[in-house]
Amino acid sequence: MKSVKIIGIGAEKCGRSDDNLIDLMSKSSIKAITDAGNVPIDAIIVGNMAAEDFTKTKSIPTYLTDEIGYRGTPSIRVENGPASGSAAVMTAFFSVCSGVYDTVLVTGGEKMTSVSTDECTDILAEMLHPVEKMHGFTLPTWGAILTRLYMNEGLTREQLSLVSIKNHKNGAKNPIAHFQKIITDGDIKNSSTIIDPLKLYDICPISDGSASVVISSKTMEDSIEIAGIGQATDTHAVYQREDLTNLKALQMATKKAIDMADISIWDIDLMELHDAFTILEICEIENLGLFKREDIPKAYEDGIFEIDGEIPINTSGGLKARGHPVGGTGVYQIYEIVEQLRGEAGDRQVDDAKSGLCVNFGGFADNVIVSILKRS
Amino acid sequence: MKSVKIIGIGAEKCGRSDDNLIDLMSKSSIKAITDAGNVPIDAIIVGNMAAEDFTKTKSIPTYLTDEIGYRGTPSIRVENGPASGSAAVMTAFFSVCSGVYDTVLVTGGEKMTSVSTDECTDILAEMLHPVEKMHGFTLPTWGAILTRLYMNEGLTREQLSLVSIKNHKNGAKNPIAHFQKIITDGDIKNSSTIIDPLKLYDICPISDGSASVVISSKTMEDSIEIAGIGQATDTHAVYQREDLTNLKALQMATKKAIDMADISIWDIDLMELHDAFTILEICEIENLGLFKREDIPKAYEDGIFEIDGEIPINTSGGLKARGHPVGGTGVYQIYEIVEQLRGEAGDRQVDDAKSGLCVNFGGFADNVIVSILKRS
Repeated sequence: MKSVKIIGIGAEKCGRSDDNLIDLMSKSSIKAITDAGNVPIDAIIVGNMAAEDFTKTKSIPTYLTDEIGYRGTPSIRVENGPASGSAAVMTAFFSVCSGVYDTVLVTGGEKMTSVSTDECTDILAEMLHPVEKMHGFTLPTWGAILTRLYMNEGLTREQLSLVSIKNHKNGAKNPIAHFQKIITDGDIKNSSTIIDPLKLYDICPISDGSASVVISSKTMEDSIEIAGIGQATDTHAVYQREDLTNLKALQMATKKAIDMADISIWDIDLMELHDAFTILEICEIENLGLFKREDIPKAYEDGIFEIDGEIPINTSGGLKARGHPVGGTGVYQIYEIVEQLRGEAGDRQVDDAKSGLCVNFGGFADNVIVSILKRS
Repeated sequence: MKSVKIIGIGAEKCGRSDDNLIDLMSKSSIKAITDAGNVPIDAIIVGNMAAEDFTKTKSIPTYLTDEIGYRGTPSIRVENGPASGSAAVMTAFFSVCSGVYDTVLVTGGEKMTSVSTDECTDILAEMLHPVEKMHGFTLPTWGAILTRLYMNEGLTREQLSLVSIKNHKNGAKNPIAHFQKIITDGDIKNSSTIIDPLKLYDICPISDGSASVVISSKTMEDSIEIAGIGQATDTHAVYQREDLTNLKALQMATKKAIDMADISIWDIDLMELHDAFTILEICEIENLGLFKREDIPKAYEDGIFEIDGEIPINTSGGLKARGHPVGGTGVYQIYEIVEQLRGEAGDRQVDDAKSGLCVNFGGFADNVIVSILKRS
């Protein structure tokens, strides 16, 4: 298979932005193309989940392509819920690997603050099976149920809070993070309950944002290889799963990515996981086979997942602190890994990072994409 | 480049359906997989333009994958306006050509009759540049303006009607066409004016529908090769074009597809063009370089574009008579060409058809995909 590399990256700060979606996407696109030395671009692939709902705008690929001065260039949109960004990267990977294109720009972004929080929750709930949505389920409902399952087995409030405390600590070192503020166990306890047992700090924020990568068969200085990429699905209706803590799609997607990259999970230097809810980071660590469920809290206490730990997780701040502009998240994850593998992550730098893995969920673990990057 | 073939096809009848989107998509998917001899499917790619708007449903790829019994299989959605179907086929082509997947199911569909005609027009108008939409433009507005441009140069009402009369004649022979009814020049004249100068029969209907193809690196009996596929864009704001009749994106996309397929446009045996408005078929014939503008009406009168003519166009009935379930249209076009190249088109059969070309517009000619199929 052809070697496919990331030769340019760009991202806007996550958060509440004054820019509209096309402006956000244009800015990160131009940054990535500039970072790639203004290499010719053969096609543009947009990752976006719900511009129709958030901004009543369609034709995002054509609009972006024209706006950034690439009129004529082919462009499409790939949508896979909150894994739209990874799906766009995967599609670009296919197109370069096929030999049809040499170099493709991928831009993943979302403008979410244009609607109220309630409207946003409703829009996101359309991701669920219609029967679950009809019965009033939202994504936070499932996040709360999964958290309760772990708490029933002994996970404490203090242990769960370690996820958010770590990710906020990392976010505080990330100039493009939505939240750049260290939080304490006390802050979490004193925050409002959103849906019991989830506190405010257990749920990712609603963010605007856009991130871009240039993917190419060419090699440049600081090229980072897309060594493996895998995808799998699970029951669309979450209630149909025999065990909600058993993330089968994650396991299958990881196996595919690991096999393609020809690497052991133990040789991966850092990971960006999909912590839309704090419990998901814990559940993903377990399903990746890194630690047994009962040993995970101690691993957090021992600092295993810190930037200077054995397996740094969410050095960007994760969805919790960096932010989760849904269609952009997969690209933001890859952006973070590329910065780390280039040695350009500043205060967040993981020593001598050679490989990284991203987990991106499209829906409640029913559609998962895992990608593995390696320093060339 | 790896040879990529279509080894299975399936489609539902276009029209007002009692089925919901997932049911429609499931039915055409199962038909195509069955037609492909129940070959193992490595991934599913959905072409859909606006399920969020028409049916308030998201996660279409995961939902479909689970519904048809392929739980676990990777799936994504590709969206490119009314060229979503072709964009999904193109993405599947990339993924098989890359060697990552051997066999991919593509299903393109739309459920449009769930909203009123006015709501539908508004939803589709979101495809336009926001400035044009803000000023009250819709897709039919641009269709009317383009028609007026041709009429100002002498195109008569009777000549324009030849497009619709031919496509309805073909649709009457197509069991999956929305309209299976021959119409006369008198029917058109007596029909209501929708937006002057467009009469009812100048505009494609609002249709539900879903079509599927199985794309593979494997060869089976009756395999049809995807010999070439090309895409290009133009100004997103239509008013920015110097000459509305000069379809630059179509010209560029056609050149790419022709070059990849290594064929002359004159050696292509039949074509499915994007006749969302009757004038578009005429304008596309001109921009493909088949006839000069002034010679096109006579070519229609001479029967050049009929099933038994020199260059059969829209043997399926086209968007006008077969129907235009927006996200599905690109796949329906390919379905028709495959039936023709297999020699299975019944009363619509073009004698000894060896190659066919499809033109699919995503927006008002601002994003165009052209694909070329050949009998293996």
